Amino acid sequence: MPGGKDQPIGEFRIAPDPQATGLTRQLTGSTHSGETVSIAVIEERPLTIFLNSTEILTAMTIGDYPEFLALGFLANQGMLDDMRQVTGVDYDAESDAVVVRTVDKTGHEEKLRKKTRTSGCAVGTVFGDLYESVESVKLPDTKLRVSWLYSLAATINRTPSLYLEAGAIHGTVLCHQDLPLVYMEDVGRHNAVDKVAGWMLVNEVNGSDKILYTTGRLTTEMIIKTAMMGIPVLASRSGFTAWGVDIARKVGLTLIGRLRGRRFMCLAGGERLIRDADYRNMQDEDRRHRRKAAGDD
Amino acid sequence: MPGGKDQPIGEFRIAPDPQATGLTRQLTGSTHSGETVSIAVIEERPLTIFLNSTEILTAMTIGDYPEFLALGFLANQGMLDDMRQVTGVDYDAESDAVVVRTVDKTGHEEKLRKKTRTSGCAVGTVFGDLYESVESVKLPDTKLRVSWLYSLAATINRTPSLYLEAGAIHGTVLCHQDLPLVYMEDVGRHNAVDKVAGWMLVNEVNGSDKILYTTGRLTTEMIIKTAMMGIPVLASRSGFTAWGVDIARKVGLTLIGRLRGRRFMCLAGGERLIRDADYRNMQDEDRRHRRKAAGDD
Repeated sequence: MPGGKDQPIGEFRIAPDPQATGLTRQLTGSTHSGETVSIAVIEERPLTIFLNSTEILTAMTIGDYPEFLALGFLANQGMLDDMRQVTGVDYDAESDAVVVRTVDKTGHEEKLRKKTRTSGCAVGTVFGDLYESVESVKLPDTKLRVSWLYSLAATINRTPSLYLEAGAIHGTVLCHQDLPLVYMEDVGRHNAVDKVAGWMLVNEVNGSDKILYTTGRLTTEMIIKTAMMGIPVLASRSGFTAWGVDIARKVGLTLIGRLRGRRFMCLAGGERLIRDADYRNMQDEDRRHRRKAAGDD
Repeated sequence: MPGGKDQPIGEFRIAPDPQATGLTRQLTGSTHSGETVSIAVIEERPLTIFLNSTEILTAMTIGDYPEFLALGFLANQGMLDDMRQVTGVDYDAESDAVVVRTVDKTGHEEKLRKKTRTSGCAVGTVFGDLYESVESVKLPDTKLRVSWLYSLAATINRTPSLYLEAGAIHGTVLCHQDLPLVYMEDVGRHNAVDKVAGWMLVNEVNGSDKILYTTGRLTTEMIIKTAMMGIPVLASRSGFTAWGVDIARKVGLTLIGRLRGRRFMCLAGGERLIRDADYRNMQDEDRRHRRKAAGDD
């Protein structure tokens, strides 16, 4: 798998590759003026995740990093704690399937019977008991410098991405202080988070000093996944849901939303903010780097 | 259930109610400048859908129109064709559950074993065989006036909504020519579509002369749902996925994306457009009515 521990620190371990083959396709259509044009459109394809011999579910994904997606999904569902349990991860492009093999049967296969359909883009499936397991999570009381947030948002918005190439895609970035480390994109914002979680699992990366940045809304499922990853800060350009805020407050997750230019709202963990940035000298977000409207759901 | 056949034609049969109790909550937080503020945040709560005695799934929803959501979800999954099959729809607010009872067991309960996790916001579950069943759909060759699209977008963007009140929510509007009829919102864009489908089922509304407008992306699941509803036109502010376009072309769905101000892209059914609007005299979308950035996923 790419993006291993041996890559240099101080730059992206994984960044989007807008020119990668197979992630977008040129399609022809017509514009409002009747002009025939060809545009880059993002791919969406099924990927079925198996845990040993049990089919867990089929995700609709752009298709990069299938192993990270499978491992991260299982970890975020509480079905996998550690790579030492894993004896193999086999991706078969022909059948659009990933099989994660573990030493012992995990017993989590049974949990399949209770599923939750959630408000996440792509991949809206959370298993019923997750809401209970996340309540026992207690995240560390990590301080957050506001200057890091501003720096991260500026860097991420300017990084070449499939979003800038084709739109209609979400991004999630694992960061340390003001440094973005792993930038995943996917048609489903939950897939992007799961791919980050898979990378963390494989590389034994601890979440306690990290920040997770997402372009998506701060719904319950996003907040539960972040808590399961042990990351104490979740920041987004987007808005909140009330239950999401409730859970964040309960588990000790610092929750920053509507982060655009110098503006943001903090609805959980505000006491951990170190307000070291002089927002008065900052511009509001300039148009060129603004993500497009609701469109990008 | 509200929104029945007896309501007047020529205005919304159902429009958003931004002041409705229970759909938003005031939460207190801090802004970038350290100011303590209270903002309206959208609610998100579970709703479990039962078909007879079988638990189908739990959706995360704002919670309005649970009966329409349950009926529309089942109809869009191909589990319900007609209200004559339905002997009862019971919503229990205490247990956050809706039970849809049918004359006979539908047999669809078995399909539960194969689920698809998809790229939809909220509610990303499509059953495996849906992709097959949608391929037999052949939508009518309905013409589409571009002037209707412009008129609909302008009306919908200016209609008071939970989106304008609290953000972080999607809208779907069932329209006839240039007239919006039913405007549903939800944290999950698929829920909004399913609520429209439920309203159509209960009111025996035929989709063949309708237009469906959505704020969300045009992913496979959105396209399949629209086709299942028999609606030949799907228009969105947002972008496309390549497989979604493939399905739209196969079933004969006219697909309009990136509809903002005078601009749009048509990637399927372009030959059905009647270009009766003079886009040269139109403005690009004005800032005040632009939906906010990616945030609104």
